Amino acid sequence: MPGNTFGTVFRVTTWGESHGPALGAVVDGCPPGLTLSAEDINEELAWRKSRDPRVSTSRKEPDQVEICSGVFEDRTTGTPISLLIRNRDVDSSSYDHLRNLFRPGHADYTYWHKYGIREKRGGGRASGRETVARVAAGAVAKKVLDQHGIIVLSYTLALGGIRAQKLDFDEVYKNPLFCPDAEAVPRIIERLKEVKEAGDSVGGVVEIRAQGCPAGLGEPVFAKLDAMLAAALMGIGAVKGVEIGSGFAAANMLGSENNDPLSPAGFLTNNSGGILGGISNGDEIVARVAVKPIPSIEKEQQTITEDGEPTKLSVKGRHDVSAIPRIVPVCTAMVRLVLADMLLQQRAIR
Amino acid sequence: MPGNTFGTVFRVTTWGESHGPALGAVVDGCPPGLTLSAEDINEELAWRKSRDPRVSTSRKEPDQVEICSGVFEDRTTGTPISLLIRNRDVDSSSYDHLRNLFRPGHADYTYWHKYGIREKRGGGRASGRETVARVAAGAVAKKVLDQHGIIVLSYTLALGGIRAQKLDFDEVYKNPLFCPDAEAVPRIIERLKEVKEAGDSVGGVVEIRAQGCPAGLGEPVFAKLDAMLAAALMGIGAVKGVEIGSGFAAANMLGSENNDPLSPAGFLTNNSGGILGGISNGDEIVARVAVKPIPSIEKEQQTITEDGEPTKLSVKGRHDVSAIPRIVPVCTAMVRLVLADMLLQQRAIR
Amino acid sequence: MPGNTFGTVFRVTTWGESHGPALGAVVDGCPPGLTLSAEDINEELAWRKSRDPRVSTSRKEPDQVEICSGVFEDRTTGTPISLLIRNRDVDSSSYDHLRNLFRPGHADYTYWHKYGIREKRGGGRASGRETVARVAAGAVAKKVLDQHGIIVLSYTLALGGIRAQKLDFDEVYKNPLFCPDAEAVPRIIERLKEVKEAGDSVGGVVEIRAQGCPAGLGEPVFAKLDAMLAAALMGIGAVKGVEIGSGFAAANMLGSENNDPLSPAGFLTNNSGGILGGISNGDEIVARVAVKPIPSIEKEQQTITEDGEPTKLSVKGRHDVSAIPRIVPVCTAMVRLVLADMLLQQRAIR
Amino acid sequence: MPGNTFGTVFRVTTWGESHGPALGAVVDGCPPGLTLSAEDINEELAWRKSRDPRVSTSRKEPDQVEICSGVFEDRTTGTPISLLIRNRDVDSSSYDHLRNLFRPGHADYTYWHKYGIREKRGGGRASGRETVARVAAGAVAKKVLDQHGIIVLSYTLALGGIRAQKLDFDEVYKNPLFCPDAEAVPRIIERLKEVKEAGDSVGGVVEIRAQGCPAGLGEPVFAKLDAMLAAALMGIGAVKGVEIGSGFAAANMLGSENNDPLSPAGFLTNNSGGILGGISNGDEIVARVAVKPIPSIEKEQQTITEDGEPTKLSVKGRHDVSAIPRIVPVCTAMVRLVLADMLLQQRAIR
Repeated sequence: MPGNTFGTVFRVTTWGESHGPALGAVVDGCPPGLTLSAEDINEELAWRKSRDPRVSTSRKEPDQVEICSGVFEDRTTGTPISLLIRNRDVDSSSYDHLRNLFRPGHADYTYWHKYGIREKRGGGRASGRETVARVAAGAVAKKVLDQHGIIVLSYTLALGGIRAQKLDFDEVYKNPLFCPDAEAVPRIIERLKEVKEAGDSVGGVVEIRAQGCPAGLGEPVFAKLDAMLAAALMGIGAVKGVEIGSGFAAANMLGSENNDPLSPAGFLTNNSGGILGGISNGDEIVARVAVKPIPSIEKEQQTITEDGEPTKLSVKGRHDVSAIPRIVPVCTAMVRLVLADMLLQQRAIR
Repeated sequence: MPGNTFGTVFRVTTWGESHGPALGAVVDGCPPGLTLSAEDINEELAWRKSRDPRVSTSRKEPDQVEICSGVFEDRTTGTPISLLIRNRDVDSSSYDHLRNLFRPGHADYTYWHKYGIREKRGGGRASGRETVARVAAGAVAKKVLDQHGIIVLSYTLALGGIRAQKLDFDEVYKNPLFCPDAEAVPRIIERLKEVKEAGDSVGGVVEIRAQGCPAGLGEPVFAKLDAMLAAALMGIGAVKGVEIGSGFAAANMLGSENNDPLSPAGFLTNNSGGILGGISNGDEIVARVAVKPIPSIEKEQQTITEDGEPTKLSVKGRHDVSAIPRIVPVCTAMVRLVLADMLLQQRAIR
Repeated sequence: MPGNTFGTVFRVTTWGESHGPALGAVVDGCPPGLTLSAEDINEELAWRKSRDPRVSTSRKEPDQVEICSGVFEDRTTGTPISLLIRNRDVDSSSYDHLRNLFRPGHADYTYWHKYGIREKRGGGRASGRETVARVAAGAVAKKVLDQHGIIVLSYTLALGGIRAQKLDFDEVYKNPLFCPDAEAVPRIIERLKEVKEAGDSVGGVVEIRAQGCPAGLGEPVFAKLDAMLAAALMGIGAVKGVEIGSGFAAANMLGSENNDPLSPAGFLTNNSGGILGGISNGDEIVARVAVKPIPSIEKEQQTITEDGEPTKLSVKGRHDVSAIPRIVPVCTAMVRLVLADMLLQQRAIR
Repeated sequence: MPGNTFGTVFRVTTWGESHGPALGAVVDGCPPGLTLSAEDINEELAWRKSRDPRVSTSRKEPDQVEICSGVFEDRTTGTPISLLIRNRDVDSSSYDHLRNLFRPGHADYTYWHKYGIREKRGGGRASGRETVARVAAGAVAKKVLDQHGIIVLSYTLALGGIRAQKLDFDEVYKNPLFCPDAEAVPRIIERLKEVKEAGDSVGGVVEIRAQGCPAGLGEPVFAKLDAMLAAALMGIGAVKGVEIGSGFAAANMLGSENNDPLSPAGFLTNNSGGILGGISNGDEIVARVAVKPIPSIEKEQQTITEDGEPTKLSVKGRHDVSAIPRIVPVCTAMVRLVLADMLLQQRAIR
């Protein structure tokens, strides 16, 4: 069944495997007349790239998009926008020793059960590489949000057990971790080095904020704004949890603590995370996602072969220690897709 | 925009307001030949009802469904199944003092901004009453799952700050809290009484397990099984967070801890919560949701009127202290809807 | 698979069988604030009823809708509108002799192959009775169109081989055939009587016009306005053909004849039927449908039983001689559903 | 709003303009394990090309597809299949004189009203060139149908007023007109030459047959097989009418003539065109489409400029005299897409 399309009015279909010729996205339903160039998209793709060898692996060349349709003289025309990104570094020889076994924590076991076939060149559609198409599409969604003054910002709230103690948003794009706490950065990098040397990997938490979002977005009862954000974010590879506003902390709160009092100037607190009854309330939208440690580790693990025989596995080669920070721009992109879609949906009814 | 339909192959559309004449659901895409009677559905609806006055408010009469179509001689025919549940207790006079102001933590503010109109009889479509239609539809989904031996169980993991210390699933349906820890029950009830007397409310955590689910369900990359579960569960009124398997704890784990080793007999641990790469792996599916405290409290709160004037609010009348336990069967229903849909989707490709 | 939902933004789900307890529709995505009462819908349902015994069979009581949700104080609220119409006359004894055989031209053979089960009370979901839900939903769509001054009119262009020679639209609602040519009416009625006495049935052509439709509606390339009209109209029970503007005549025309010249005052002809490239051009939208003769005839026919044995069939009881005129308001309803949906879709992009 | 996706389970999204860099399609929901190569698709694309200069214009080089994803070692993997076809001949200078006026019968007027922007390089998304993506996707659908022994054949039934008098299906691929009547071919070619010399264009009728289709396909009541075929075919550029089986002729028939009697060996006639109640009955599926004359003609026509000023237009340059025969493989492709989708949909329920 088709699972590669996201959104209702602003609708994105992605395709592509990590070791195939290319990846891409088709954005259908984008309003006409928006300025859009390849540079706009390449800039977002660059954020997804590693900028620090201590933090993540690097493919040499940056990703470059080709806009194949839907744009004329740097303006969207209202027809589908096809975005194409070539894979440049598709040597899959480092996957040779993995081809007949299943990697713990990976999707190769489940893809094989689902499709009865294995794409043995690499991670295939389950690779983190898949998210390049999401980021490209998110760059188009950004254009819709720009028109309405909506800004989406994601950052590393915690990584390797170390949590940002302050939220200095100006700091986010200044360090390779997208961390809003400059003092936490060297400590986290130290921690990542330790883990790498131990042949292990770590998880963390990404927080996403959307500012400037008008009240009224979200479609009860099943396409609520928080439900769509949850689907969008949980659908990113390494994410194991999503919370909005006070989130899991709300489970331990009293109503008198968690309710956000209303004043003539607006809400006095924001435990709701900007969403009430599944509809935006005009306040800042706040979500957090739990990111699991990357499953590919050098440490020896117990697993089985395709024939069901027990074996040991140690994943060699370049592998990130954490899906963070690469996943940060992906979170931004997914939230942009949701908000652009919900904005256009709301236009249809009023 | 339409937001009241859930699912792709097994597709449910719900309708109805808390103080209107009725609520209901249309289940389209249900396979033909399944046995289905009103009793099957009424039984599920009964679980949604309070059985203990210490825990939640009670409407006197149980909900009764009328099956208006799609069933002939107690068997589904393959045509849409229309389920109708009359509202019996729709006196909305207790809402009179709420009609010109906004309740903190409630959706009346956002519905008003979204639709430009207020349904002043009660909670309307944002009321917890809405979930009766979900539970009815979930009872149909159960029939699909029964054929495949899949069982979904939800229970109260924590409530009012007290967490179940053991998971005795036989206990769940024996106490009014759906709590798997018999010893925790009196302590929680005591806590609920305290909170009630203080005019306040509390949150908690519900855990959901699905057993017997085959490997291969879920549609990458956007309709992943965990993404659909997240949307399904986050779309329930009071839910502020969803996690799968190790969930937010994964953010603090090492890869070597979080990865589930594979043996010829299966996975040795289940941090994945039964889902890898968005596809079920044949292990038990485990999800948890954070439930916020009910926003309607007697304690005085600061708010504004429709005209934007500041005012004080104390919500009188019968109100539950927590959305738990009522929300427990709703979680079960939503997970059933997701699994039935994904089962049928998988049939289409193989 | 779900096939009972129509539309994207203005989305209708229908349900119900001819001999079940009720039929209905859920209209999701209707803008809030429109006036809507049961009378508005009952009025449309009344047009679907026979008013002349020479023309069609009569059920004694008119259909009455109950609006179960989505309307508060006679205004739509933006939430799903649930419409319920009880079946009053569900004696299915006249179907007794049909239960073990297949009626030529009917859907009982194909439903049985599709679902592996037969609803033996009557026509079930394949009965013309199903269209009562479409007409009810169409009455809601009319409210959306009213706001934009769009009027949809359908009428009998030909019946039993006799074609209307003039189009006097004021005449349409004055005769029981919805025929715009008063002089043709008695001739057609005479023809219907002859056919009825011969135990046979006849087909005809219905023409549908939509006036006041703005340029710009329709979503290329697959959800073109003409494609959606074709699906909407071909999806009505007895329809075997749909054409737009010059339609099949265009196959015999030259480009210089069929092209509609443009002047500063608009198009000089309307061979396009108001649609170019799948998008409305601001001119009148014109469609025609071919309606096959009703398959239930008294004349003896050759058929087989469920066991595959040859047998003879003569369908007794009250049966219309033609699906026309009953089908005329159904065509109107379906075109209204398409236009309301396309209007709201267009709002989303500009 | 997104209108560029077709199908529910076997779902195709197309993109691309006539004078942009490329066109393409993403096929999502294709079952895994089917053999598929670029050659399979190029072969279908070749049929779409002119093979006779008397009949239609020629672009020198054949279209070549690149399969960018979803296929590994010549087998589909179950992930989205991205197909890319480069435009090679995108000199748009011949469109220079058309840029500030509207061509009668063309979509430039309506696109401008819809999107508020004009793609002035050529026909853009409204060009017949768009159909190359449909044909490519149809070649994938063919693989699904091959597994079930379903064959789709389309041919020219009438062109320029001359109708095929016999249906010799072996003849269809032997002449440049895809005409099943060898004797009609020279007469039609003669007629096309006359029309071309007169600076005019002509329409015709294409007939489509699907053999081997099992009973049970089609999803009542809105996604009926005939409704989906009607949408699929009416959504092709030049099509103004669609009929199934006896089609418009049924409007003049008696029930006793139009009903197909059933015998133990099957239906004795096929006026239904293989579809009853919107569900396939196991008989051959037969559809016909009316194709309008190509609107671009050299003969002088009356039109207006973008500023609304009256002007005259004579379209120079290479233009086909008729959309037939190029449209014939497009009809085949669209019917394949419908049948592949419906086959997989039916799998989901039984």
